[in-house]
Amino acid sequence: MPLTPEQQAEIDEARSHHHQTIRATVPGMEAHLYQAHPVLDHGFVRVIDYMGDDAAITQAARVSYGRGTKKVTNDEGLIRYLMRHWHSTPFEMCEVKFHVKLPVFVARQWIRHRTANVNEYSARYSILDREFYIPAPDALAAQSTVNNQGRGELLEGAEAERVLEFLKSDSSRAYDNYEAMLSQDGQKGLARELARMNLPANIYTQWYWKVDLHNLFHFLRLRADIHAQYEIRVYAEAICRIVADWVPMAYGAFEDYRLGGTQLSGKAMDCVRRMVKGEKVTQETSGMSAGEWREFEGVLGDPA
Amino acid sequence: MPLTPEQQAEIDEARSHHHQTIRATVPGMEAHLYQAHPVLDHGFVRVIDYMGDDAAITQAARVSYGRGTKKVTNDEGLIRYLMRHWHSTPFEMCEVKFHVKLPVFVARQWIRHRTANVNEYSARYSILDREFYIPAPDALAAQSTVNNQGRGELLEGAEAERVLEFLKSDSSRAYDNYEAMLSQDGQKGLARELARMNLPANIYTQWYWKVDLHNLFHFLRLRADIHAQYEIRVYAEAICRIVADWVPMAYGAFEDYRLGGTQLSGKAMDCVRRMVKGEKVTQETSGMSAGEWREFEGVLGDPA
Amino acid sequence: MPLTPEQQAEIDEARSHHHQTIRATVPGMEAHLYQAHPVLDHGFVRVIDYMGDDAAITQAARVSYGRGTKKVTNDEGLIRYLMRHWHSTPFEMCEVKFHVKLPVFVARQWIRHRTANVNEYSARYSILDREFYIPAPDALAAQSTVNNQGRGELLEGAEAERVLEFLKSDSSRAYDNYEAMLSQDGQKGLARELARMNLPANIYTQWYWKVDLHNLFHFLRLRADIHAQYEIRVYAEAICRIVADWVPMAYGAFEDYRLGGTQLSGKAMDCVRRMVKGEKVTQETSGMSAGEWREFEGVLGDPA
Amino acid sequence: MPLTPEQQAEIDEARSHHHQTIRATVPGMEAHLYQAHPVLDHGFVRVIDYMGDDAAITQAARVSYGRGTKKVTNDEGLIRYLMRHWHSTPFEMCEVKFHVKLPVFVARQWIRHRTANVNEYSARYSILDREFYIPAPDALAAQSTVNNQGRGELLEGAEAERVLEFLKSDSSRAYDNYEAMLSQDGQKGLARELARMNLPANIYTQWYWKVDLHNLFHFLRLRADIHAQYEIRVYAEAICRIVADWVPMAYGAFEDYRLGGTQLSGKAMDCVRRMVKGEKVTQETSGMSAGEWREFEGVLGDPA
Repeated sequence: MPLTPEQQAEIDEARSHHHQTIRATVPGMEAHLYQAHPVLDHGFVRVIDYMGDDAAITQAARVSYGRGTKKVTNDEGLIRYLMRHWHSTPFEMCEVKFHVKLPVFVARQWIRHRTANVNEYSARYSILDREFYIPAPDALAAQSTVNNQGRGELLEGAEAERVLEFLKSDSSRAYDNYEAMLSQDGQKGLARELARMNLPANIYTQWYWKVDLHNLFHFLRLRADIHAQYEIRVYAEAICRIVADWVPMAYGAFEDYRLGGTQLSGKAMDCVRRMVKGEKVTQETSGMSAGEWREFEGVLGDPA
Repeated sequence: MPLTPEQQAEIDEARSHHHQTIRATVPGMEAHLYQAHPVLDHGFVRVIDYMGDDAAITQAARVSYGRGTKKVTNDEGLIRYLMRHWHSTPFEMCEVKFHVKLPVFVARQWIRHRTANVNEYSARYSILDREFYIPAPDALAAQSTVNNQGRGELLEGAEAERVLEFLKSDSSRAYDNYEAMLSQDGQKGLARELARMNLPANIYTQWYWKVDLHNLFHFLRLRADIHAQYEIRVYAEAICRIVADWVPMAYGAFEDYRLGGTQLSGKAMDCVRRMVKGEKVTQETSGMSAGEWREFEGVLGDPA
Repeated sequence: MPLTPEQQAEIDEARSHHHQTIRATVPGMEAHLYQAHPVLDHGFVRVIDYMGDDAAITQAARVSYGRGTKKVTNDEGLIRYLMRHWHSTPFEMCEVKFHVKLPVFVARQWIRHRTANVNEYSARYSILDREFYIPAPDALAAQSTVNNQGRGELLEGAEAERVLEFLKSDSSRAYDNYEAMLSQDGQKGLARELARMNLPANIYTQWYWKVDLHNLFHFLRLRADIHAQYEIRVYAEAICRIVADWVPMAYGAFEDYRLGGTQLSGKAMDCVRRMVKGEKVTQETSGMSAGEWREFEGVLGDPA
Repeated sequence: MPLTPEQQAEIDEARSHHHQTIRATVPGMEAHLYQAHPVLDHGFVRVIDYMGDDAAITQAARVSYGRGTKKVTNDEGLIRYLMRHWHSTPFEMCEVKFHVKLPVFVARQWIRHRTANVNEYSARYSILDREFYIPAPDALAAQSTVNNQGRGELLEGAEAERVLEFLKSDSSRAYDNYEAMLSQDGQKGLARELARMNLPANIYTQWYWKVDLHNLFHFLRLRADIHAQYEIRVYAEAICRIVADWVPMAYGAFEDYRLGGTQLSGKAMDCVRRMVKGEKVTQETSGMSAGEWREFEGVLGDPA
């Protein structure tokens, strides 16, 4: 349960105030506002605010005075055209702000996406809560034997138990000692900015994260991808579901052209042209390296 | 009059649709939405959308679950503290989108502010309107004799008339020939992307421009400044008035610490300390160059 | 001839000073340094400085202490892997600085690439030269009849002559009047920041432009593309030739995976899979719109 | 000792290769290249590459063809003018690349500076070394009693000993268990991307960090400031010493106008003007809040 009763009360209070506005408003997004969508064991994603809708994209592309055409089909065709031809600036005209609670090692990957605005909970200023990510049994994977930065089979039995025991006891001891160092009971108490260095990377932090739709799509393409680490992918997937309710046309185009799309090299396209004409192409006749050919075969064989 | 009746009708139509929202809403900003604030002879600034309010700044600074404290005075003190200590990220949590109509030479300065989103009316795709900036008599200034990139006295009489005549007739002829080259009447018609090269820099263009509040303040500090060119300064001033209605606390802090504030060098601060103690300091004893001392004296003498 | 004898002498002087360095140095790039590569009728691209080489990319990817592996083949394989899998940060570790002279309407497209550093010649501070882009006969194209933002057939005969006459005479008159307004001979002289507004968009400007290799590749992918306007494409092509001499491995990967590559949508990949298995697919059975299908057929039929 | 003999050998090897170049070269910076400047107990800063020098700043400001004026004093005056008047783009024309080894909690502050290029050692791909930051006795400070995000008096005696014992033993145990979880000896071995979550924030990481001079100055102004956390300040100070050798004129201007300078609000400037004229101003007559007045008195009294 990621929220305390006090936090839930603040959310309920925020959801109870209705205002009149003449801004672009999306009922599907209003339903998400402020709600905490649980992710992992203690994390969440909450929409705090949003700007724009599908029509705001086409309105900006046309630099128009009003809200654009009456015909929704025109908007959808234009949005798909913009996505297909990498006209990214109209998508930047939508903006969204999230409140995210996430383990520090996930935050460290996430922050690498630089074109976004961030306010993180400060462990110099405040004391972190005793909340640590402990993987569920089905996320406890061995090192991949084929991919240096991936995971392979599940750990099981005693090995799995031992890992969970390490993670839990080390987190717990680190937090106990964090508190002991901070304590001003009979001692001065270590500065918070120093004491935090004892805390492991599975502790939860939280931040406000604000991003435009183009850069959010870029984030989602990399982080909702099968090669992304599971622990950040679940956040990306939660956000995908929210974005689908916010800008359904743009999300549909993103899903088709980016998430579900494939970038083929010049060599790969040559092979495709030859294969479509009925030629049998092998790695030897493809001009590709073994690694590239393996990836190419994967793409041709598998709709994922 | 910057708007056609059709454009005004589109704006009225956009203003007529009221929606319910539980987002942060600012009545003073709702009043501005979609309205065209005239700037220069044919330009305008229109607010198309906004995200956040004063409370959104403190809410992000605190990474809080709800809408923050009950006490407004706490919010104001925190906002002033954040501004004074260059904590810029909470101000990035507010966002605003404008539709701006402006001469091309102003657009060329404006676009140098990179941390913003822009969609400009495309002269590859569309035909530009016959609208040119012709300075009002009180903006028709001579080259400054002391500042290589500034203006000095007003031009008057025959010289002023001749300048206006040049600007008007050259604009007019350039546009006539633009149309003549584009025309498909009895000829193929030059590509729009080529024909536009004949148009002078005082022709109006327009764009959607979206920016966060921190970067907007940076823009306003540089462009509402007395050293900025008059033709961009009037846009900045129009935006200042809008921002004051949107986030009055943040704008107040910006006005005091940035717009009205002064950056003094280490040497200048040493002089101030000596002068406050009653010492008489001259350029010779100040350690400053002649130019720096002149600027320093200007700052000490003059509240502007 | 884009350079005056004085300018050429300054370049020769700059090329005559040899220094010792222990930085990564690329002989092919040293040969380009400071030289003006002509583009269009008066423009050029000059390399002013560069940082890094192919090995700097792999060195950063490995966060290594020295200059990386001895085996060049390892470097090339890694660079191709990084490009194929969109690992963009190692490419950001190379940087290049150009001096570019270009028409204003080209500069206005170019500046839309925001992740770069720019210093433009200031027409507030200085007086622009009398140099205008006048298209060569084979660049004088009609508006495309199928693409709203493209060009079609060449203009010929009287129509072509008339266009050239308009461009030349309007430029010439605008510049005459620019000088007349600036003149302080018997009059005050209009401020330079105002007088420039009379100049058309085919006048040449110049700037220093500095960018990292990842963002340069992004620029080149969009601007060396067949859909880019010819007048910016020739700059992109000139830069491509330089980059091929600077980081040949990275450029090779870019050429194969980006310039020569194709992004296929999920629907298009489904069609490819069916076609490779021998199925005959039509637009009706493809799930694509008419426009998408036409583009898809173009990609399948044509190696360009 | 931050470097192993193998690492030192790689550095010596890199320093042994001298090349001819016609690029701008700074002997003072060549002396720094590749050398590890120790910071904290296991960290360092190494210059990997640099682009430009003081003259490159003025050359870009003038958009000139050659290497600029002969007179060095002109360059210095222009650089100081540019710094004083916030003309930041010429400073962006210099670029520097560092290899930095630093504790994770320092890295988390550092990465908030977004306008930079980063490649961090990947703990998904590789195994981290057993190196932890343990504060020296004179860095072991209590929480400040006046500043929520600062430190106060030194810890001493038993309290200091206990803190060091906690930090050392928790780090050591966490690393032991990290290794135990990774081990493939008689078990599958946990994925590296998961095992790393057990490691505390005082473990060392390393990255390549590349930034332009303007953004580096912004970083240094905030992080070499007395309010910055000590553990990041020592990195900023090490970089300050390097930059002073690289671009001495620009660094001198930065030191005077930014590091040693002060931003005074409009209200504070009014008080200064009154005080210089001999008026006695108190908080009550200043128009400032108690907090602002205290900061103002601090600035007036103290050259730091």
